[in-house]
Amino acid sequence: MKLPVAICGATGSVGQYFISLLANHPYFKTVLLTASRDYESNYTMHWRASLKPPAKLHSLPIVKTTVANIKKSGARIVFSALPSGVALNFEKELVEAGIAVFSNASAYRMDKNIPILIPEINSNHLNLIPKGTTPHITNSNCTTSGLALTLSALKPLGIKQVYLSTYQALSGAGYPGVASMDILGNVIPHIAGEEGKIREETLKILGDYKKGTITPASFEVMAQALRVAVKNGHLETVFVQVENRPKLPQIKNLFTNYQVDAAVASLPSTPKKTFYFFDNPERPQPVLDVHNGEGMGVSIGSLRIQNNTVAYKLLVNNVIRGAAGGSIQNAEYAFYKGLIH
Amino acid sequence: MKLPVAICGATGSVGQYFISLLANHPYFKTVLLTASRDYESNYTMHWRASLKPPAKLHSLPIVKTTVANIKKSGARIVFSALPSGVALNFEKELVEAGIAVFSNASAYRMDKNIPILIPEINSNHLNLIPKGTTPHITNSNCTTSGLALTLSALKPLGIKQVYLSTYQALSGAGYPGVASMDILGNVIPHIAGEEGKIREETLKILGDYKKGTITPASFEVMAQALRVAVKNGHLETVFVQVENRPKLPQIKNLFTNYQVDAAVASLPSTPKKTFYFFDNPERPQPVLDVHNGEGMGVSIGSLRIQNNTVAYKLLVNNVIRGAAGGSIQNAEYAFYKGLIH
Amino acid sequence: MKLPVAICGATGSVGQYFISLLANHPYFKTVLLTASRDYESNYTMHWRASLKPPAKLHSLPIVKTTVANIKKSGARIVFSALPSGVALNFEKELVEAGIAVFSNASAYRMDKNIPILIPEINSNHLNLIPKGTTPHITNSNCTTSGLALTLSALKPLGIKQVYLSTYQALSGAGYPGVASMDILGNVIPHIAGEEGKIREETLKILGDYKKGTITPASFEVMAQALRVAVKNGHLETVFVQVENRPKLPQIKNLFTNYQVDAAVASLPSTPKKTFYFFDNPERPQPVLDVHNGEGMGVSIGSLRIQNNTVAYKLLVNNVIRGAAGGSIQNAEYAFYKGLIH
Amino acid sequence: MKLPVAICGATGSVGQYFISLLANHPYFKTVLLTASRDYESNYTMHWRASLKPPAKLHSLPIVKTTVANIKKSGARIVFSALPSGVALNFEKELVEAGIAVFSNASAYRMDKNIPILIPEINSNHLNLIPKGTTPHITNSNCTTSGLALTLSALKPLGIKQVYLSTYQALSGAGYPGVASMDILGNVIPHIAGEEGKIREETLKILGDYKKGTITPASFEVMAQALRVAVKNGHLETVFVQVENRPKLPQIKNLFTNYQVDAAVASLPSTPKKTFYFFDNPERPQPVLDVHNGEGMGVSIGSLRIQNNTVAYKLLVNNVIRGAAGGSIQNAEYAFYKGLIH
Repeated sequence: MKLPVAICGATGSVGQYFISLLANHPYFKTVLLTASRDYESNYTMHWRASLKPPAKLHSLPIVKTTVANIKKSGARIVFSALPSGVALNFEKELVEAGIAVFSNASAYRMDKNIPILIPEINSNHLNLIPKGTTPHITNSNCTTSGLALTLSALKPLGIKQVYLSTYQALSGAGYPGVASMDILGNVIPHIAGEEGKIREETLKILGDYKKGTITPASFEVMAQALRVAVKNGHLETVFVQVENRPKLPQIKNLFTNYQVDAAVASLPSTPKKTFYFFDNPERPQPVLDVHNGEGMGVSIGSLRIQNNTVAYKLLVNNVIRGAAGGSIQNAEYAFYKGLIH
Repeated sequence: MKLPVAICGATGSVGQYFISLLANHPYFKTVLLTASRDYESNYTMHWRASLKPPAKLHSLPIVKTTVANIKKSGARIVFSALPSGVALNFEKELVEAGIAVFSNASAYRMDKNIPILIPEINSNHLNLIPKGTTPHITNSNCTTSGLALTLSALKPLGIKQVYLSTYQALSGAGYPGVASMDILGNVIPHIAGEEGKIREETLKILGDYKKGTITPASFEVMAQALRVAVKNGHLETVFVQVENRPKLPQIKNLFTNYQVDAAVASLPSTPKKTFYFFDNPERPQPVLDVHNGEGMGVSIGSLRIQNNTVAYKLLVNNVIRGAAGGSIQNAEYAFYKGLIH
Repeated sequence: MKLPVAICGATGSVGQYFISLLANHPYFKTVLLTASRDYESNYTMHWRASLKPPAKLHSLPIVKTTVANIKKSGARIVFSALPSGVALNFEKELVEAGIAVFSNASAYRMDKNIPILIPEINSNHLNLIPKGTTPHITNSNCTTSGLALTLSALKPLGIKQVYLSTYQALSGAGYPGVASMDILGNVIPHIAGEEGKIREETLKILGDYKKGTITPASFEVMAQALRVAVKNGHLETVFVQVENRPKLPQIKNLFTNYQVDAAVASLPSTPKKTFYFFDNPERPQPVLDVHNGEGMGVSIGSLRIQNNTVAYKLLVNNVIRGAAGGSIQNAEYAFYKGLIH
Repeated sequence: MKLPVAICGATGSVGQYFISLLANHPYFKTVLLTASRDYESNYTMHWRASLKPPAKLHSLPIVKTTVANIKKSGARIVFSALPSGVALNFEKELVEAGIAVFSNASAYRMDKNIPILIPEINSNHLNLIPKGTTPHITNSNCTTSGLALTLSALKPLGIKQVYLSTYQALSGAGYPGVASMDILGNVIPHIAGEEGKIREETLKILGDYKKGTITPASFEVMAQALRVAVKNGHLETVFVQVENRPKLPQIKNLFTNYQVDAAVASLPSTPKKTFYFFDNPERPQPVLDVHNGEGMGVSIGSLRIQNNTVAYKLLVNNVIRGAAGGSIQNAEYAFYKGLIH
């Protein structure tokens, strides 16, 4: 018996990835799609995701996003791909109605009672959810997810300061998103609000949980976020100042032998390898590597050391690991932990 | 009476910019173009530069790159857009033959007797050239030129460490350069040799000249160089750690009131404003700003401070300021200083 | 004394080209810009046109598009870059108020009392405007303008059937227009309504004026319209079936010796050469040739004959010849003819 | 027991598609890859195909392209992705040595004794190969393959004249192929030799076989071939003049009920549907439809009729149906027919 789930904001960019990734899921069965209005049929949905739509897409109803509609469907979990403004009230109402919410919206990420969960890093942050209550859990910003995973690997080095520059894909802006006239042969040097989110979320994700409180990590993060003409896959250049000058093989080892808790490793959405490490400096590239680990792996290349700085490039699939896939993995973990009824 | 000049490597990408920028030059008159072989006529040259070719292009002969051909032409200056391997011997022979060389090749940049000249920054490095000898002067790597100019403005803050990530244009790779199959919808995370050049050249350019020797600047530079699908204009993100935490207006003032030596300011190729400073975080963009200051200005945006780090984005025209235009400005300065006969 | 003019829909894509092209115009002086709402200042206008904005842009007021505002400004001519739905009522009101309208909107193109004017082709269609009345004149669809000009040159061959395929630029869709996610590395095979417009407008433009009526040309036109990832410049492939098999030099001559009425040739916006003819099959290309004839010339290449079919490629600047520049040329001609008071 | 095959020109663009498509093939087993030189290991092969390399890629030797090497390998079939100049002598030598050749090279396509085979269309052209001799069979030019398939469906209408314009993908030019500087934001209006190939090959493929001779089809084909910034998938616009004006449902039916010989339909590489027919005018698009029918289907859209002209757009996968996949299907058919020993 699979658990019935609904996808809210299903017709949007991230919503379509939820639909694809949940087709044939071993734990969950999609019973409802919601959007800003009722659809007569979902044959009218314009499919844009790079993953294929499920064969049975057309048998799924699309209804207006209301709590009543979701309750009627019997869904026990909502995957939220709603705009942040809509998510603010709606996700709260859902949780109050006893429906678990796994959200890709940014609305609640910095709420002190709600974890930004990346199970490989901070599975213990799930303790923020009091026993017996309905879980409301967010994933991180797409750019943050890749950065935080690599920093969790580098933690043993004593991180002091992180400088990040991003080469973010168009899909991160949703649809229609960036105008083609603006990006053709160009780079857009600004993504509103992104740099602050990256800093705050990274420190919360890597923070320490103790007695119902998360203390943010104590290092510093400074980011510059830019958009490039790439469809999917955020490439990021990272400079990490650490306490003591490490050696290259030591750092490579931190990535290639990254340990994941056995329960987390066994989740359907957890990739076999957290990190795809390249010695070839021509990699990772968005078009070649965005699907490493079924879109849940983080690819790393150009690892270098200069004095106390570790430099590398990372590539994260912004629509899978950084969005729909991350939320699904979170739900899998909460389900495994017995938090969903 | 204008000084006769020759352009070597004239049919290549940078060579064409030399041709355009030297048309109607107030000091110099192009008398010869050279290439790897003789051309029957230059009607066969495939023009690719974004600047227009001069009206009289077809009246300029193209001959094989030999010292004899150049001597015969009467040229007193050679602008070298030669491949580095060719430049190594050939530029030396030219100088020995008494012909001044202003080179865009990397071959001699780190030679201790040859300056990497950016007149706004280090006009005194020209003292490396002993009086009465034939000058051999290089410009910097294209990426370096923009970085070094901005760092020269920030020098009063006490620079300790620089972290740079680049979004480099296709024209920086010459022609045919990057294969379209590789870059369409993609980012290429590696540019061979670039990161080392950026570090070494920046420190030399910003170094101190004293008694025939340049002592490199004492701060550190670490770069990650990437290629994006942009035609012209290298965008760069910079993080600069400085000694004392500055205030934003102070830094903005360093850029907007950047002082240039009067002689340098009067050169035909020196832009009216060294820096084009944007408060609008959407700027600079390659397609909108690459021609600021006729391609010799450096555009700056997204200035921010966090603790002791100054962060900003810069855009430099890699084919003008970072290549042909920079070399021409160097020749203008040397000519002004009476070094060319 | 220059004639005062207003630009309606000035902040949009075509509106900005009107602004640029009318700066320093010998006959006209822009006194007002209008948009869908009042602007406090036009410093907020996001400039996207490839032409530079005029130096005095910021001294031009932007007010809501109303007849009252235009009358108050003293403008005698309105250049309309309004959406077709808005243009339908508004342009009519303007003309009734005695203000001449030169429109880029499609609303009135097929009105039997309103000419689609391309002065090189059909200057006599201006006779549709009764003496003493206020002129209301449209330009053609952007794609049509280039096609119609080439067909007017080929008329002596006896045109029977035209087949057209287009490679249309993004700017033809306005701003924000095409989503970058849709066009990156792709071709969009459909432009709503375009194929019908091309057929109808071409036949009207090339039709015969007689006693107040235009009889459409009697040949057939069938078009397939597609969008490609090009910023400006519509490339078109044309197959023209003609009555008798011509010879190549004869056709080339029709293009290179195309005769333009002396009055039309003397207009400020009429290009020196109507056609830029290339023997090199690599031309025309959008990025290389879009500005031929200051954007008012039509570039032609790959001319071939097979049996009774003439085949060629043409490139037309969709935002200048096919939009703002075409309307300005029309106003110049009407002004020359004494139709504007 | 699978038949051992070799791939010549294996490291190039089409060669890699042969490798992918032949992995796990039910009839054939790849035993050798050849290239212009010996490789120490094929770990150095830069994989660029959009299909995944086989898991066992690294166990396949890469040796210099010689007849001796191929004989030694025991291969009974060679799939040739050789440059046309190399193919001219080499394929002949192979056939003389008794090794069947299925070639993607253009060298022998117009040879009167060698068929251009597209089994759905002209399986009887295989009769050109005398019984008991070693088969030498070519596929068509990539653009031609899609056109010829659609024309074979329209044959009942009485084709008189075909006009074709192409929107060809970058992969059609091999690697490195088109320079990124040339195609970024641009269309290249010329592909050397393409227009003639399309015409000649189409007429041969659709010609009649009788007593050892193929009489070309009697209609006319005129093509204009252009390159666009698309990675894979040639889009083509077609105008077909036919004898009698048909009705739309009739033509749609010709595509959707296209009949394929049962033997051909049973081949592993024959797609389930020859044509993917779209009523939605937004389709087909290269990025959405290039893999229809595992890259062997031809997608069709925008079907229209005007007088006696049928117009439509088609999309063909140039690297699969138009190259490697087409040759493999040919070998499957020859194998089925018992021509390979």
